[in-house]
Amino acid sequence: MTNQALLERRYNLLGKASPLFYERPLQFVRGEGVWLYDIDGKRYLDAYNNVPHVGHCHPQVVEALCRQAGTLNTHTRYLDETIIEYGEKLVSKFDPSLSRVHLCCTGTESNELALRIARTCTGASGVIVSDFAYHGNSKTVAEISSAFPNPEGVGTDVRVVTVPDVYRLRPGIDAASAAEAYAKDIAAAIEDMAANGIKPAALLVDTIFSCEGLPTVPAEYLEKAVALVRAAGGLYIADEVQPGFGRTGTGMWGYEQYDVVPDIVTMGKPMGNGHPLAGVVVRPDLMDAFGKETTYFNTFGGNPVSCAVGLAVLDVIEREGLMENANTVGNYARDGLRKLAERHDIIGDVRGPGLFFGAEMVRDRQTREPATEETGTIINAMRERGIIISRTGRADNVLKIRPPMPFSKDNADFLLSALDDTLQAL
Amino acid sequence: MTNQALLERRYNLLGKASPLFYERPLQFVRGEGVWLYDIDGKRYLDAYNNVPHVGHCHPQVVEALCRQAGTLNTHTRYLDETIIEYGEKLVSKFDPSLSRVHLCCTGTESNELALRIARTCTGASGVIVSDFAYHGNSKTVAEISSAFPNPEGVGTDVRVVTVPDVYRLRPGIDAASAAEAYAKDIAAAIEDMAANGIKPAALLVDTIFSCEGLPTVPAEYLEKAVALVRAAGGLYIADEVQPGFGRTGTGMWGYEQYDVVPDIVTMGKPMGNGHPLAGVVVRPDLMDAFGKETTYFNTFGGNPVSCAVGLAVLDVIEREGLMENANTVGNYARDGLRKLAERHDIIGDVRGPGLFFGAEMVRDRQTREPATEETGTIINAMRERGIIISRTGRADNVLKIRPPMPFSKDNADFLLSALDDTLQAL
Repeated sequence: MTNQALLERRYNLLGKASPLFYERPLQFVRGEGVWLYDIDGKRYLDAYNNVPHVGHCHPQVVEALCRQAGTLNTHTRYLDETIIEYGEKLVSKFDPSLSRVHLCCTGTESNELALRIARTCTGASGVIVSDFAYHGNSKTVAEISSAFPNPEGVGTDVRVVTVPDVYRLRPGIDAASAAEAYAKDIAAAIEDMAANGIKPAALLVDTIFSCEGLPTVPAEYLEKAVALVRAAGGLYIADEVQPGFGRTGTGMWGYEQYDVVPDIVTMGKPMGNGHPLAGVVVRPDLMDAFGKETTYFNTFGGNPVSCAVGLAVLDVIEREGLMENANTVGNYARDGLRKLAERHDIIGDVRGPGLFFGAEMVRDRQTREPATEETGTIINAMRERGIIISRTGRADNVLKIRPPMPFSKDNADFLLSALDDTLQAL
Repeated sequence: MTNQALLERRYNLLGKASPLFYERPLQFVRGEGVWLYDIDGKRYLDAYNNVPHVGHCHPQVVEALCRQAGTLNTHTRYLDETIIEYGEKLVSKFDPSLSRVHLCCTGTESNELALRIARTCTGASGVIVSDFAYHGNSKTVAEISSAFPNPEGVGTDVRVVTVPDVYRLRPGIDAASAAEAYAKDIAAAIEDMAANGIKPAALLVDTIFSCEGLPTVPAEYLEKAVALVRAAGGLYIADEVQPGFGRTGTGMWGYEQYDVVPDIVTMGKPMGNGHPLAGVVVRPDLMDAFGKETTYFNTFGGNPVSCAVGLAVLDVIEREGLMENANTVGNYARDGLRKLAERHDIIGDVRGPGLFFGAEMVRDRQTREPATEETGTIINAMRERGIIISRTGRADNVLKIRPPMPFSKDNADFLLSALDDTLQAL
């Protein structure tokens, strides 16, 4: 039962615009692994939250947090071994060209810093982004995030392009020609910038295209796009806030799905399993060039507690084989969704890598008309059945399934069975 | 001894531009109350760090952190009692007109959000700031921070004014006429904006003027400045990242030193005693107007762990009487500094409220020539004597003494005695 008194206090304190999930909001009091427990003791399977990456309240992460918080918590203007240990371990997960790190606290801060570095190092201001993306909540980052309305709108030096989605390609384009065809939009964006006296500083994309609805992006599109941007003097910034840390199942980073290494990588959400930890990994020449122009210091970024937590998260991912689990269970769950699709016409497409997958809901498999309203009904019905999922995409009609990484085949079975019942009852 | 091998690894990982304190960097391994312990077991009195506000590794704060991190850590899109409890307690410390809160993770994020709210609600873009301030590290906030060089420079819609410093007033102006005289600069900034088609959205100041060198600002200056900005349609944003949470000793907030209530208040550093917790307190009409234009959501901001930590910090401040302590010990230490000034001509001025005070070092009390180099020598010599302080101000010649709040008279005596010896040995 929704706690109406608490809801009223919340409105008085946070206002009514502060987003709240579900028609009947949930109030959790405990989390463990892939499970969340509400105030009435009811258990929910968490198939949505990616921040508790290695599982809610993972004991090894909590232990590292408590141990370091009780010992020392300072900042990076003193020498400290924890940040070196963590930073070295973190950069070892990347291409050797990406050997430097700046730590900060949120994905917004990491994208802010990446843009500052790119613009400073290129001497250019233009940024090319996908036309339905979200990268954070500062002014500059809001100006490159068009998935949600904001008062700043798209920045004057920002150009948006549509990323190809093989399920919804423009007329006359097929999967084989899509990479080439959509890369032309990148070329056009660069030309339009030039016509306005703007040079591109960067192409910045979420390499899993989360807000865009997890489209299947044709091979070679990103390589072609990056090549065009680089030829015009710009850099490639991979936003790994969503796909990073093994979620795709086949690599630690979403960018590894494509055959091109970024110049700058930004990280956030899963990095500290809920502790505010984020960062930017960058080529040393770029960091040094930026460092000549200004001093970047982040009060909390890279403090010993954050680094101890970050180390524990990396260690758990390895020890528990969570990347491999994301691959195995992700494939298993997608197979299950495809089986459901045999009996439920509303499922138009099943996609997404590892443990970040989606099912696009349509009213008609021929016209592919988005089943937006039905998707909302499904999300709320799943909540009533004790399963937390959400939705994404331009038409808000893609089931967004992105559980903590220890998600098991049993968990997938529970989800699939509840979804089957929910679709049956639609 | 500086750990040279670790320093090299640090350079390889963080670059050489990442700031590091002292000629011989310090490596701490443990903190407790006002004390830090280095890798050789040497104890240092921390008279610099304001982030560990209630003391390094305060047991009640660590306990709250561990308890909540082991129970539940989600986000504000679920109903949660901890954020309501914390938020209500936090806003109760403000003027009743400031009844709404947005929580985020860093001072940068809180200033970003405050500017977005101010610009959206006024429909104006201009910002007036002090000419030697630091408010954070995002692009927009860098554009209002002129204390350190940055590639963005001062924003085109930003105007900088000099805040009156009674120790260094412009020729022909005395303390009695300073408020009126310097307020004219605000009027001129507004006129200059108007001449360029810009309207003021806000005046934004650190109410303790930390980077400016902790100047004694004449009574009524800020009231006059705010009145001018408000008359032109702008808002007053008080940046409480430095002065907030009782540090001034006479109130919870720095703005209370002046007779004018802000429209928006931003908080950071001390709020979570090292945990990345920050926030914006705002008038409800402003929050609602902003909420009509966009959704502000911060992944980590206001999560149950951050709020449990924030609650513990507020509780410790009250239970241990830390605001009162800041007043008593601050006055005691300033008296001690003034006694030192009787014997050491280099001390030109002693100032600053509560437990954030400074001594301006000069080569000549008549000309007031800044003793910049000597101040650097003093800071490093104090470090060798086991005391951590820093320096601030335009000429980097103001001793910056800003200890954790449980700083005692004994601690002050130790600091004063070491400073006496250091000045003697200059």
